[in-house]
Amino acid sequence: SSVPEVRKVTLIPGDGIGTEISASVQKIFDAAGAPIEWEAVDVTPVKGVDGKFRIPQKAIDSVNATKIGLKGPLATPVGKGHQSLNLALRKQFNLFANVRPCKSIEGFKTPYDDVDIITIRENTEGEYSGIEHTIVPGVVQSIKLITEPASRRVAEFAFQYATLNKREKVTVVHKANIMRLSDGLFLKCAREVAEQYPNIKFEEMYLDTVCLKMVQNPGQFDVLVMPNLYGDILSDLCAGLIGGLGLTPSGNIGEGGSAIFEAVHGTAPDIAGQDKANPTALLLSGVMMLRHLNMYDHARRIEQACFDTIRDGKNITGDLGGKAKCSEFTDEICRRVRDL
Amino acid sequence: SSVPEVRKVTLIPGDGIGTEISASVQKIFDAAGAPIEWEAVDVTPVKGVDGKFRIPQKAIDSVNATKIGLKGPLATPVGKGHQSLNLALRKQFNLFANVRPCKSIEGFKTPYDDVDIITIRENTEGEYSGIEHTIVPGVVQSIKLITEPASRRVAEFAFQYATLNKREKVTVVHKANIMRLSDGLFLKCAREVAEQYPNIKFEEMYLDTVCLKMVQNPGQFDVLVMPNLYGDILSDLCAGLIGGLGLTPSGNIGEGGSAIFEAVHGTAPDIAGQDKANPTALLLSGVMMLRHLNMYDHARRIEQACFDTIRDGKNITGDLGGKAKCSEFTDEICRRVRDL
Ligand SMILES: CC(C)[C@H](C(=O)O)[C@@H](O)C(=O)O
Ligand SMILES: CC(C)[C@H](C(=O)O)[C@@H](O)C(=O)O
Repeated sequence: SSVPEVRKVTLIPGDGIGTEISASVQKIFDAAGAPIEWEAVDVTPVKGVDGKFRIPQKAIDSVNATKIGLKGPLATPVGKGHQSLNLALRKQFNLFANVRPCKSIEGFKTPYDDVDIITIRENTEGEYSGIEHTIVPGVVQSIKLITEPASRRVAEFAFQYATLNKREKVTVVHKANIMRLSDGLFLKCAREVAEQYPNIKFEEMYLDTVCLKMVQNPGQFDVLVMPNLYGDILSDLCAGLIGGLGLTPSGNIGEGGSAIFEAVHGTAPDIAGQDKANPTALLLSGVMMLRHLNMYDHARRIEQACFDTIRDGKNITGDLGGKAKCSEFTDEICRRVRDL
Repeated sequence: SSVPEVRKVTLIPGDGIGTEISASVQKIFDAAGAPIEWEAVDVTPVKGVDGKFRIPQKAIDSVNATKIGLKGPLATPVGKGHQSLNLALRKQFNLFANVRPCKSIEGFKTPYDDVDIITIRENTEGEYSGIEHTIVPGVVQSIKLITEPASRRVAEFAFQYATLNKREKVTVVHKANIMRLSDGLFLKCAREVAEQYPNIKFEEMYLDTVCLKMVQNPGQFDVLVMPNLYGDILSDLCAGLIGGLGLTPSGNIGEGGSAIFEAVHGTAPDIAGQDKANPTALLLSGVMMLRHLNMYDHARRIEQACFDTIRDGKNITGDLGGKAKCSEFTDEICRRVRDL
């Protein structure tokens, strides 16, 4: 068998607990023998000669070269006019689809045990257009921008994802009863794309109805595709059903396979540096990354070692109901991954 | 003791199961001796001389005179350009606040038993402005309109509601991290109003975070106030936690105390006319109406008779897990209300 080629990946450790959980992920990847070479970069904006803050060119160059990033949580700079760095990165690299799988985790008890949902969120426009105006004092408009290319692109992505991952159904989530033109266009694109995938069931549902049914019977949902804001909402809702953002991975996928995988939880400054953080969301984001790079075997082994650890309940972190430090949890996964 | 004055109320029975559940509510109100005189009107749009469809003048005159309506579900006319009649009514009478209480119902099992949330939704603008444009083919913008008067008005309504109903906390739900100007304005108004209510706790939370926490621990929420679309979403989510739209009341409140109370579930054409429908949502909307009219004693007795019936589980309708017809469920509540 051939020696696997080593893949270079940009690592954005992030702020707060970012350093610890990134170190944990690197350690587990090493234990699994994943052929990844990390290039760590700092994305904290720096002031240019024009006085504007920008992501350091070195970080941008790195992602442009590697095409793949793994990213910890980033603190949003305080003060007006500062856009969330998370969003800036999605924009900078035109990462048009945000993919968030939520699957019930054995051993972590919630009222739901049959969640297995993939939220696919349009990641470049919609309510996140950034276009807003004050018309007269006290009268503001924000623009929700929906375009045919972006809508079609994310719908195609969703159906291809469903096909590749042997999923049965794609549900398009919308409020075209209210936003007839904008959500209407999104819906039309989804319908047209759906016709090209006769083997995947296609369903249309209002956002409010999805929310209601989601808490009553999440098992009925499979792959969901939707405009930007609805994805923000539903991905958090689904995360809540299985245990929260500390357990859910996420990937931002762009043209030509470039992608940044990220933990979408916060920086948890209150526990940063205390070896208490749970690296699961970043680790599972790394697993998504490995699959994206066709490293299926490493992905499977790391994932299983992580889920086995949580299920057995020994050496798990405080948020999971245990008493282990981040490093102990990490070591437990490393031990298991070596045996798989 | 004085004979209570009879209050005239406009009844919009609605489509599909609307007729049956409206009859049920009238019967129960009679049994309770509620001093209400119903004026039933039809709101099905009629074609004017100009070819446009409009709500019949007779219906409008009735609500303008009585100032109070109780409304069953309405079918949205099929075909483009037809706005939802539900929305048209909210607009016609400038009903600026949509109030949806969701409280766990004893005897109806869901994964949650401590829900007691009031969703207060701005009901006139936001994403429901109806302003949309196709800029060039395939590029659409919808306008989210937020104004200071409407934002302040609904925030004031929320804090007054909280005060009158002895609630502890008001949470404003927003995405001002993304829509800095529009949601920013809504948030600013809520903050300013909050300062005038030092006895009510005030909290700010992102919409996505609310969704996540809602399914993890709904008991932490009390009164929620938010822009139009967020209210559409969260009220359905909360309804899902306690058993769905068949069990949750709703009220649309306007200036000077005019109001329309409505069941927000569908018209259920599949079971219409079969004496199978559950009148609970409309009945509890009627109870909200009675409280709005200061008829607290009738409200309390009807509510208790309804909840007692559901808790005891005899003579309950199919959706509640029983086998009773709508009329049997209604008669059971009537029997009980007479004894209270
Ligand atoms: C941090 C915030 C700007 C972001 C968003 O609204 O998209 C977050 O909620 C997410 O889902 O990644
Ligand atoms: C029927 C529909 C137009 C309406 C809305 O979107 O407001 C409904 O979902 C509601 O919540 O009353």
